Amino acid sequence: MAGNSFGKIFNLTTFGESHGPAIGGVIDGCPSGIILDFDKVQTELNRRKPGQSEIVTQRKEPDTVKFLSGIFEGVTTGTSIGFIIENANQKSKDYSHIKDVYRPSHADFAYDKKYGTRDYRGGGRSSARETACRVVAGAVAKQLLSSIRINAYTSSVGDIYLKKPYQDLDFSKTESNIVRCPDQEIAETMISRIKEIRKEGDTIGGTVTCVLQNVPIGLGEPVFDRLNAELGKAMLSINAVKGFEIGSGFCGTNMKGSEHNDIFNADGSTKTNLSGGIQGGISNGMDIYFRVAFKPVATIMQKQQTIDKEGNIVEMMGKGRHDPCVVPRAIPIVEAMAALVLADYYLLNKVYN
Amino acid sequence: MAGNSFGKIFNLTTFGESHGPAIGGVIDGCPSGIILDFDKVQTELNRRKPGQSEIVTQRKEPDTVKFLSGIFEGVTTGTSIGFIIENANQKSKDYSHIKDVYRPSHADFAYDKKYGTRDYRGGGRSSARETACRVVAGAVAKQLLSSIRINAYTSSVGDIYLKKPYQDLDFSKTESNIVRCPDQEIAETMISRIKEIRKEGDTIGGTVTCVLQNVPIGLGEPVFDRLNAELGKAMLSINAVKGFEIGSGFCGTNMKGSEHNDIFNADGSTKTNLSGGIQGGISNGMDIYFRVAFKPVATIMQKQQTIDKEGNIVEMMGKGRHDPCVVPRAIPIVEAMAALVLADYYLLNKVYN
Amino acid sequence: MAGNSFGKIFNLTTFGESHGPAIGGVIDGCPSGIILDFDKVQTELNRRKPGQSEIVTQRKEPDTVKFLSGIFEGVTTGTSIGFIIENANQKSKDYSHIKDVYRPSHADFAYDKKYGTRDYRGGGRSSARETACRVVAGAVAKQLLSSIRINAYTSSVGDIYLKKPYQDLDFSKTESNIVRCPDQEIAETMISRIKEIRKEGDTIGGTVTCVLQNVPIGLGEPVFDRLNAELGKAMLSINAVKGFEIGSGFCGTNMKGSEHNDIFNADGSTKTNLSGGIQGGISNGMDIYFRVAFKPVATIMQKQQTIDKEGNIVEMMGKGRHDPCVVPRAIPIVEAMAALVLADYYLLNKVYN
Amino acid sequence: MAGNSFGKIFNLTTFGESHGPAIGGVIDGCPSGIILDFDKVQTELNRRKPGQSEIVTQRKEPDTVKFLSGIFEGVTTGTSIGFIIENANQKSKDYSHIKDVYRPSHADFAYDKKYGTRDYRGGGRSSARETACRVVAGAVAKQLLSSIRINAYTSSVGDIYLKKPYQDLDFSKTESNIVRCPDQEIAETMISRIKEIRKEGDTIGGTVTCVLQNVPIGLGEPVFDRLNAELGKAMLSINAVKGFEIGSGFCGTNMKGSEHNDIFNADGSTKTNLSGGIQGGISNGMDIYFRVAFKPVATIMQKQQTIDKEGNIVEMMGKGRHDPCVVPRAIPIVEAMAALVLADYYLLNKVYN
Repeated sequence: MAGNSFGKIFNLTTFGESHGPAIGGVIDGCPSGIILDFDKVQTELNRRKPGQSEIVTQRKEPDTVKFLSGIFEGVTTGTSIGFIIENANQKSKDYSHIKDVYRPSHADFAYDKKYGTRDYRGGGRSSARETACRVVAGAVAKQLLSSIRINAYTSSVGDIYLKKPYQDLDFSKTESNIVRCPDQEIAETMISRIKEIRKEGDTIGGTVTCVLQNVPIGLGEPVFDRLNAELGKAMLSINAVKGFEIGSGFCGTNMKGSEHNDIFNADGSTKTNLSGGIQGGISNGMDIYFRVAFKPVATIMQKQQTIDKEGNIVEMMGKGRHDPCVVPRAIPIVEAMAALVLADYYLLNKVYN
Repeated sequence: MAGNSFGKIFNLTTFGESHGPAIGGVIDGCPSGIILDFDKVQTELNRRKPGQSEIVTQRKEPDTVKFLSGIFEGVTTGTSIGFIIENANQKSKDYSHIKDVYRPSHADFAYDKKYGTRDYRGGGRSSARETACRVVAGAVAKQLLSSIRINAYTSSVGDIYLKKPYQDLDFSKTESNIVRCPDQEIAETMISRIKEIRKEGDTIGGTVTCVLQNVPIGLGEPVFDRLNAELGKAMLSINAVKGFEIGSGFCGTNMKGSEHNDIFNADGSTKTNLSGGIQGGISNGMDIYFRVAFKPVATIMQKQQTIDKEGNIVEMMGKGRHDPCVVPRAIPIVEAMAALVLADYYLLNKVYN
Repeated sequence: MAGNSFGKIFNLTTFGESHGPAIGGVIDGCPSGIILDFDKVQTELNRRKPGQSEIVTQRKEPDTVKFLSGIFEGVTTGTSIGFIIENANQKSKDYSHIKDVYRPSHADFAYDKKYGTRDYRGGGRSSARETACRVVAGAVAKQLLSSIRINAYTSSVGDIYLKKPYQDLDFSKTESNIVRCPDQEIAETMISRIKEIRKEGDTIGGTVTCVLQNVPIGLGEPVFDRLNAELGKAMLSINAVKGFEIGSGFCGTNMKGSEHNDIFNADGSTKTNLSGGIQGGISNGMDIYFRVAFKPVATIMQKQQTIDKEGNIVEMMGKGRHDPCVVPRAIPIVEAMAALVLADYYLLNKVYN
Repeated sequence: MAGNSFGKIFNLTTFGESHGPAIGGVIDGCPSGIILDFDKVQTELNRRKPGQSEIVTQRKEPDTVKFLSGIFEGVTTGTSIGFIIENANQKSKDYSHIKDVYRPSHADFAYDKKYGTRDYRGGGRSSARETACRVVAGAVAKQLLSSIRINAYTSSVGDIYLKKPYQDLDFSKTESNIVRCPDQEIAETMISRIKEIRKEGDTIGGTVTCVLQNVPIGLGEPVFDRLNAELGKAMLSINAVKGFEIGSGFCGTNMKGSEHNDIFNADGSTKTNLSGGIQGGISNGMDIYFRVAFKPVATIMQKQQTIDKEGNIVEMMGKGRHDPCVVPRAIPIVEAMAALVLADYYLLNKVYN
């Protein structure tokens, strides 16, 4: 109810601030009998962690997950899975420069007004650090859904777009470059762009495309809990996301019905897939694909005018080490949230079979 | 859990198929003491109902709502509010042409695979007819939120766009034309376009923009139940919606942080509002605005190839009276869903005050 | 959240006041493919309805249920099932005598303080009339659970107890007398007692015992949602219930572990069953049995002192036709609530298989 | 959904097995601005912890709680509160004697059948060790509800009853003896009884009475989520609980309406309080009191016959250090669960004011 839980059956509840002793979570509803590959979980965390390349924040966090329950002799037991990730980087930083200041386009002002108080160190709960817990749970969900393929990649950085349709891409290349774009040439342009932006002390937005393949037919609960609606909510719950489109998306609004309709093949598959693998809110067995819009990171290394708690106009400048573009580190987060939604709806659908 | 409920505190549960005896719903969690204006509820339903103008389906449904509980002497009592809308148009239609046929880009195939059965008459539960219940509940929510202004309008039909920012529009003009676009000139072009499309026996997509003004600061529950995430889910749960963007949306991905950041005024308002009134998932008191993408209606009056239940390739053609463009009738639905989200988060926020 | 819904997967939401136009509900999460026997549903309603015998209220209500959705050609479709029961007895009664008066041990005072208003006609929402909707949903649940046997019966009226263990009873006799006690001799004593009490213008309490047989092993969700906890909540949510005990119950507190432990047979059944068919919150395949305490009905045909809204001491006397003992009509309600819990946990358990 | 969460608004999710590295939980929905007294939290934990007296298990667990989030400079921030309690006693015990054996009247059999696997060390998740997390959350809830008085005490051990009504007791004496009975004389008899039972290698049941005073009028959500129903569920979710009665409880079934009705005083209080402070599911401002039945602990230090996984009849005998009577240590657990229910309904009720 207070917003720190996600999922109906496969349910994740998270806690933790960027500068507390630890962040963590509880996965409830994970079926018993899953042999967990802990290395795979850590690999996902490593894809998200700071300091992994020259185009992301240079902060250092080992981000090692420690499971505390729900797993016995390497196998899930069906009881709740508690885990924590200790904050290595939590100590003795100087945050006096933002203590009483509302950083522009951050959550500072809104948190203060809602809660009457906030943990100002590094953004506290509003820091994207909490997404590490999503990645842990997503990595567990992926192992539950081992036959489903979940692939996200960077499809744009600023105005540099990867225009090829996903069918022409080799997803095994996504991890071959630091911007996580499976087209090597475009990837290099994106990387150069991010480096330039960083030099300016500025930041830039971008988009992530995600493709879900081999999804069983029948996932989704009309009318309100359509699979597309829940995927949309999942993505829009990630920090910095401002848009979501699935299948034909906004482009589809320009089309006629006679162009847009996906004609069936005899086997129930469709010739086109502008529906994006979901019809009436229920997966139809075709690929699900969607695109997520990330705004530029709000912390910039330039002087900005802002206000303090008393409403005085003050000047401030970002300190520390921040991401010039959030998109490369967002890839595993998008995949994790997609995995959480699919795991939840996959389990929920078992009720009806 | 099975998807027919929406909202945590202000909760709507709906039921009903397009051709059963009635559709209806239960609103639970509406506070006591609200003097309900029933005419306003009916007015909202009339904005959605078929047959209201020459550019929408010519089906006739009076769509009269009948409240059954939760209201005593015109005032809400705090108990659950049951209501029904009888289906006038339900009888003796001939649906044999679609009984065993999966209409392209409809929910037929997915429902049959998920449930093993379906009410094929007029789409059954997957018909957009269920949205009438959302409009009823939204109309009640609007009365709870009397100080908040909720205005949706048609911002594009196919490639005809209303390009003016919402600040330059007079929302009182939205209802002055049948396409519900507050710019009279663009409205006429849109209407002509829809008429052309209908003559072709085709359909066309479009977008709806919605603006929420005077929203209290502090609505939204991080980290998963951000206000933007719930608005996104609400919109993506409407039939035919393929995309959602809020604030700067997909355009914002092209911007730099230094351009995108909303600089504070001394009073806590911001000079720009690319955040779209929500920061860190919490309303900040600025206008909330978002855009919703509707695909073209799948039922067209042209011959299409499709399959039947046995996988035989067959030809079919839409019968009956359908919308050439769903957007004009979607306006009250978008507003209703926005009202439901705001009512829910408004009540939820009272917990913390 | 506001309390008018019950169940996680198999979910019932109800609405309706005793003197509004209708009461009703929505069953969400009922699987598709169940061939509904409507006569059985009506039979359950008839067991609960007023006027059925000389020892219950003589009010007349036909209590005919009308299903509005979710069923097509007699079979559930997996979509939400809406239903209503019209209030025949709703009109033009004179309730001026209780309009401003708080009846002792009724909900009047508490409702007025909580909601600031109430529908005073016949108790409004606090009337046990709402339990008719539970019976409808329970009757559907019973059909989903066709292999489980659910039998409740009157085990005491005042100090007249049916002392035989349930194993010695023939449940097929329960409906053979109007007090619904399967022992004919005790039944007659109970009936006489109720008649006496009615002559006095008074009321009397009693207990209901319920036995659930052939329940699959594995139902129940530790640690908070134990099957026994949910059964307890279900029963305590029925009007006039003041106590619940399962298995050895309060008697078990007098026992030693060496007496109380249920020793296993080789097949996993147990020699005794003081656990009452549930261990660690999970059904173990043995019979589940529990006892529910009902207080005497608060409306008596005697003069009582009470207060009005302004705090004036006034005298009042029950009018109309009320139950001298609620227990006989509570039997189908207890069974219905048990069926709702079992249906819910049965479906939930499918997630993990 | 999978049962490890409790509460709608003030929500606790727990995890942890008795012999994993740690148990813990997440409190979501705790309002911001509460100055937490950490000593009080630890004091509650100490009341529950093993080894505290000669009549409870002699296992040693420091049970030190470590808060990880949601609190900044000693004050709650409104974000989720994560906490862990490390298991000191977890190591290298020999559990081979129960690995493949189902202990009578334990959860072993049911867990194995439900989940297909279990952590057999010390009962794993089914161990009452998880209740420590409830005590932590309950201690936070108590601080939120500082004006409500919550007092539980031992009201019987076996057939030794404290017969005085709670009004005649001095709750400040409850902690003055190790059995937690506020009547010193009865307490001594109870303690002797427990010592005898322990000498026999046996165990004994008992009851806990709990009194909630100064509860605001209006808590409770009819019709399903009545305050009494939720209190009942909360208590029945505690290990070893077999019964719950509130107000007049099972005794009330023997009474007439004319005796049982609580007559109002002019100020809205009632002369008697057989309703137990709740009418129509809503608190009416009078004291809430209820009684909880605990069966004897199933682990006894005597030889018992049982079966192993293969269905072989085997003999087993309890090892280790167990409670001869669970009731003294259950007192803080009952109080904690009551506090969780009250905190939840107190916050929920703010929605409507």
